[in-house]
Amino acid sequence: MELFFSQDIHDGRIRLDPEESAHCIRVLRHRPGDEISVIDGRGNLYRCELDLADAKGAEGRVTAMTPGFGAHPYHLTMAVCPTKNIDRFEWFVEKATEIGVDVISPVIGERSERKVLKTDRLRRLTLSAAKQSLKGTVPQVAEPQSVRDFIAGAPAEALKLICYCFDDVERTPVTAALQPGSGRPVCILIGPEGDFSPEEAALARANGWIPVQLGPSRLRTETAALTAVTAVYLSTV
Amino acid sequence: MELFFSQDIHDGRIRLDPEESAHCIRVLRHRPGDEISVIDGRGNLYRCELDLADAKGAEGRVTAMTPGFGAHPYHLTMAVCPTKNIDRFEWFVEKATEIGVDVISPVIGERSERKVLKTDRLRRLTLSAAKQSLKGTVPQVAEPQSVRDFIAGAPAEALKLICYCFDDVERTPVTAALQPGSGRPVCILIGPEGDFSPEEAALARANGWIPVQLGPSRLRTETAALTAVTAVYLSTV
Repeated sequence: MELFFSQDIHDGRIRLDPEESAHCIRVLRHRPGDEISVIDGRGNLYRCELDLADAKGAEGRVTAMTPGFGAHPYHLTMAVCPTKNIDRFEWFVEKATEIGVDVISPVIGERSERKVLKTDRLRRLTLSAAKQSLKGTVPQVAEPQSVRDFIAGAPAEALKLICYCFDDVERTPVTAALQPGSGRPVCILIGPEGDFSPEEAALARANGWIPVQLGPSRLRTETAALTAVTAVYLSTV
Repeated sequence: MELFFSQDIHDGRIRLDPEESAHCIRVLRHRPGDEISVIDGRGNLYRCELDLADAKGAEGRVTAMTPGFGAHPYHLTMAVCPTKNIDRFEWFVEKATEIGVDVISPVIGERSERKVLKTDRLRRLTLSAAKQSLKGTVPQVAEPQSVRDFIAGAPAEALKLICYCFDDVERTPVTAALQPGSGRPVCILIGPEGDFSPEEAALARANGWIPVQLGPSRLRTETAALTAVTAVYLSTV
């Protein structure tokens, strides 16, 4: 199934932007009367009968709507320090979207080698990955912020887990820390190649974050992050 | 920690092959008297004091040996149909090695678009990934065989799980099918982009394979395979 994306949906009509229109009309050669599938990125799938096959602005009429299309039974925010090699972070963003994540929040730690990050490219990645894996919701990509700001600003009701590798305190296995079925949103914090600083870890604990560990294997930042997403996903399977 | 690889270990002496020797002596400029760390790919880590700093065949004396270095508490064979885009399969091989797998067995299904695969490049990938993630054991990469041959030839004592997407029978969630602590080796079979054929799935069931599912998300072949590896890994964390 080929999915298109639009947020220009009013009064039972859908309009595709120029990029989506060109793909729909010029590349896939859809014609008036054809039915296409459109996601709004907010969870809804629409069936749409094209009546205006304009390669700059295709339009059609909504014939059916499915809420919660491709939804997962949890709410997960992944706060991850971007890797020095950006390809690895982009790989995480694509795979996390495919498995199921709600918010990707790039965070900059004291030991982060990468301090800046362009989020527009990441947003294009989440959109294409959501379409490819048939999800109505496109994960939100937040603007980068410091680890300290993220720790302090995380919602009080969330289950907050921080993954790091040093043994300052007993760390719970991530699978034991999760509370599937509790309905609590989950925030998981993953550090940079050089790990969090002891001060960042202490600040997190002081703010109600639970130190967790991802097992004995020495995982790269992006692998640790995807392993955490998979742990949350599998806990509800 | 920089790891070297050698299987030329006799009478308390280690010899590096020309490639490893060049990296050790020419690139890293190790000199006689330096201590280096060497894995044999079979689980052992050696500390080795260099006495011959030859860039074509460096040699040294074993000063310490650690068995089970970076080992995981399970034995996992992943039989996966190679993806049409080989980069995606190579990505799986790298990440699976990093998380923890013992045998990677490429299998060709009736619906596989890719029927041939070069394994020498995959073996180089597993070696570099094992060194990077500090594991003494390098996963074995088997030669490709047909799905049917793999199904019939899998060891009787193993816990055999097959992942597919059609609903011919009730499929157990992978997390419920695993038996952590049982000590049974695990074999997991992952199909091609076009999934297994109903005949392959029926043959597997007839041979004692348990049909499992990896949850609601629509996962690419390589993502499904890594999710299965992560499920086994996390079940022992």
